[in-house]
Amino acid sequence: MIHCDCVPDPTNIPRPTIKRLSLYLRELERHESDGKPTVNSRQLGASVGITDAQVRKDLSCFGQFGQPGIGYRVAGLAVEIRHILKVDREWNAIVVGAGNIGRAIMSYPRFGDKGFRIIAAFDAAPDRVGMEAGGCRVLSMEMLHEYIREHQVQIAILSVPEHAAQDVANTLVEAGIRGILNFAPVRLNIGAGVEVTSVDVSRSLEQLTYQIAAAEA
Amino acid sequence: MIHCDCVPDPTNIPRPTIKRLSLYLRELERHESDGKPTVNSRQLGASVGITDAQVRKDLSCFGQFGQPGIGYRVAGLAVEIRHILKVDREWNAIVVGAGNIGRAIMSYPRFGDKGFRIIAAFDAAPDRVGMEAGGCRVLSMEMLHEYIREHQVQIAILSVPEHAAQDVANTLVEAGIRGILNFAPVRLNIGAGVEVTSVDVSRSLEQLTYQIAAAEA
Repeated sequence: MIHCDCVPDPTNIPRPTIKRLSLYLRELERHESDGKPTVNSRQLGASVGITDAQVRKDLSCFGQFGQPGIGYRVAGLAVEIRHILKVDREWNAIVVGAGNIGRAIMSYPRFGDKGFRIIAAFDAAPDRVGMEAGGCRVLSMEMLHEYIREHQVQIAILSVPEHAAQDVANTLVEAGIRGILNFAPVRLNIGAGVEVTSVDVSRSLEQLTYQIAAAEA
Repeated sequence: MIHCDCVPDPTNIPRPTIKRLSLYLRELERHESDGKPTVNSRQLGASVGITDAQVRKDLSCFGQFGQPGIGYRVAGLAVEIRHILKVDREWNAIVVGAGNIGRAIMSYPRFGDKGFRIIAAFDAAPDRVGMEAGGCRVLSMEMLHEYIREHQVQIAILSVPEHAAQDVANTLVEAGIRGILNFAPVRLNIGAGVEVTSVDVSRSLEQLTYQIAAAEA
């Protein structure tokens, strides 16, 4: 595998490219479990619904992968993409808000494979404290700040009600969290240095209705 | 409000533009609830983290909105965007799979405001049938096909386990569903004419770790 001399600037890669890397990785993992040793850019593109040229362009942001006429080695490219996405290391994560969404996240067995270790959950409701889901225990919200510092937690999955989200996010930031995956339907006001990615189900539904109507038009 | 003569082709709008429309709509709703009558493209852009030029470009795909020096009327632009996203009508939706994620969706009080009416849920587990969440009852999976036809359900929110997702999706398509919001971590193989949008939490976490690492670099 030949890397180009210029080190790519990770702050300068288009967001859609990063999003597609996750999709390429899913496809590579499927090929891996099917025992296929190679894949080409046409196959990768077809799996994501884009052209082979776009696949090659995306990957060229990070170096030179693959060989003309042969394609990419599945295992090698998967390793490279995991490295680019930084999921080749382990990330300590906590769930804050142990309602339905929080418990679904706690119970999801696959995060471990993907480099995310959910080591605790927190909730403000006394009747939820002490509960367990997915081998993970719900602690009192009062322990949140200290726990983050003590266990060097980097990622918080925020699944508290909308009205509590900003206050809890402030606590997370003060305690030194590096990134928040936000399920609350509210835009968090967070200073520089802490990354936020939001999962907004209403927004996904709006995308869907637009596409349905566009297909009818 | 002046619309241009050419009717825009809704199948031809860039996907990122459609995604940003949802974000503009959130910001307009915030302005509406704050009682602010107008907003300009700079404010809208700042809320989404893009330039005012991109906001104007996005909106120009759909017609001419706003007035130089004044900006956009908040209420008027919100109505227009709801119309573009087709959330100014009511969509009948069902939840398939009443586990943690399914129940979280059933219990979410805001979908009604946004044009989505969740009229039933379905589950294969006998002990979940008859349960209620958010005023919505869980029915037996055997009733799924007939229910969709009878109630002209257009949207299914698919929150079944990964191994069941494709089979259930096939049933949904046969019964005439128009769009699927997929929470199962699997790429559904669906023919043309049915739209699929996926919510993949692992993928969102990978975006987050990439951003955290990029900010450190």
